[in-house]
Amino acid sequence: MSGSTRIVAVGAAQLGPIAKDETRAQVVERLIALLRRAHARGCKLVVFPELALTTFYPRWYIEDEAELDRWYETEMPGPETAPLFDEAKRLGIGFYLGYAELTHEDGARRRFNTAILVDGDGRIVSKYRKVHLPGHAEHEPWRAFQHLEKRYFEPGNLGFRVADAFGGRIGMAICNDRRWPETYRVMGLQGVEMVLLGYNTPIHNPPAPEHDALSWHHNTLVMQSGAYQNGTWVVGVAKAGVEEGVHQMGGTQIIAPSGETVALAVTEGDELITADCDLDLCRSYKETVFAFHKHRQPHAYGLITGTAGVVSPEDAVKIDPALGRKA
Amino acid sequence: MSGSTRIVAVGAAQLGPIAKDETRAQVVERLIALLRRAHARGCKLVVFPELALTTFYPRWYIEDEAELDRWYETEMPGPETAPLFDEAKRLGIGFYLGYAELTHEDGARRRFNTAILVDGDGRIVSKYRKVHLPGHAEHEPWRAFQHLEKRYFEPGNLGFRVADAFGGRIGMAICNDRRWPETYRVMGLQGVEMVLLGYNTPIHNPPAPEHDALSWHHNTLVMQSGAYQNGTWVVGVAKAGVEEGVHQMGGTQIIAPSGETVALAVTEGDELITADCDLDLCRSYKETVFAFHKHRQPHAYGLITGTAGVVSPEDAVKIDPALGRKA
Repeated sequence: MSGSTRIVAVGAAQLGPIAKDETRAQVVERLIALLRRAHARGCKLVVFPELALTTFYPRWYIEDEAELDRWYETEMPGPETAPLFDEAKRLGIGFYLGYAELTHEDGARRRFNTAILVDGDGRIVSKYRKVHLPGHAEHEPWRAFQHLEKRYFEPGNLGFRVADAFGGRIGMAICNDRRWPETYRVMGLQGVEMVLLGYNTPIHNPPAPEHDALSWHHNTLVMQSGAYQNGTWVVGVAKAGVEEGVHQMGGTQIIAPSGETVALAVTEGDELITADCDLDLCRSYKETVFAFHKHRQPHAYGLITGTAGVVSPEDAVKIDPALGRKA
Repeated sequence: MSGSTRIVAVGAAQLGPIAKDETRAQVVERLIALLRRAHARGCKLVVFPELALTTFYPRWYIEDEAELDRWYETEMPGPETAPLFDEAKRLGIGFYLGYAELTHEDGARRRFNTAILVDGDGRIVSKYRKVHLPGHAEHEPWRAFQHLEKRYFEPGNLGFRVADAFGGRIGMAICNDRRWPETYRVMGLQGVEMVLLGYNTPIHNPPAPEHDALSWHHNTLVMQSGAYQNGTWVVGVAKAGVEEGVHQMGGTQIIAPSGETVALAVTEGDELITADCDLDLCRSYKETVFAFHKHRQPHAYGLITGTAGVVSPEDAVKIDPALGRKA
């Protein structure tokens, strides 16, 4: 990045399906191929999907701990991912990479759905652990396939943080996080200018098949509104296509702070889309309609942090007394 | 409402321009005409715009207090609005009505941008006072027109409340509130099934004319995402057309919990659009992807209530220590 411009050339590197028996080394080759195409297009930052190193294994109920463990990374980079870091550094490109993280913290083995931001020198400058885990925790054989993220991960414990990198303020989120306006807002309140977001989303949602036909509408809607309402770029990147019999949606896109999609993937395979993202386009939103300090009214938002789930009118008044005021 | 159905037949009653010299009695005649058309279409609830009784006077800088006062209602219903209440009761139709409220509370004269919900028996069952006031507080002669809501109103002190009425759980918001995801979320956390929302939005925003061409996109985006992300109907109703030289956007629409617009106004005049809104369509969202108690993580939302404006990384960590955690 030159000091005189705040344009970040970004590549959104959608992945097609990853087979169950595909090795990390094979996947890393695909990532490196996308990285090289991005370099040829002048990109300085490439965004890969969530859990980008393996098939989306939460679709299976895995009882054996050792079998489960093999889907996780215990070091980053490790022997199989080091070539990605090396090539990115050689090309001077940074990247966002999602992966399953197995770590030891606070005296326990812990599993997170994680993403890292790596700068153009190959350094990890930020880490994010998925806060909003979708799916379920117990085996539900009635489903056509499982979605056991609530079993295989714990909710992220790093909050929604931002990092100063690539000449701007960059945040991260993962998959289901994108449906929750809180995700973007917490980063917006830290001045985020670009939210990087990988996802794996089956088109079919077993508990609510009536939503399946709307998966693209919802995907676009939540990312565009998150962008507009916080005056930030959003880069949403899918793992797409039919993976081990499950059809994952595509819809990879780069969205401007105006809420307009400026680049869109149209395949369900490995596909690179790119955009010159001018971070200064954020300002016109952050300084006018969404000048938070002028317009937000936290006194009226108590329920948002005061409860996770829906509350009765009686409990609502206990959390926010204004709701009981006579007028 | 029969006990066996949760379908609410709703009319969104867009208004065309109201001239400065148009009397309340004249406007009420227009409201009554729309009410009768809604009755003929089988509606049980009609939604009128924000500040529906007069022209949008915050476009002028008014120094004289007596001149300002004449835009406000000091009683509801009053002599000029009683015919609306009477006709609605006669027809058995409820309504949402936005108006400027001048009241005495806590020993002071106070002005609010207010909406009421009136049931089919003519009773006021809920009141809302606009929380997110847009615009500015001081005269800014450089603007083509003023937007002095921050001068003429104080922020609402009743929170975002819901009322059990029309067989469901109904919430209210006003105009700029619709751009803020907090608005819908606070009501969503009280189980809202239908958000009623009137607005007056000039297409031209003097501080950011670069957004003007996107006014419809933004209007639809924020209401659709608020609906989807909370599994609620949203009824957004404009005062539209060229009013006293200022072009107000239309875009009146009724939005399902799927985030789909099911009815849309296409004129800039008095226009009624209607939909049969099945409140049970909310359930499929509230019980799956947006089952708040299963998925929300308030521990990560501290900044949302902890600050109004953007904070530095140092202050962010003070509010949410997870943001400083090493990993």
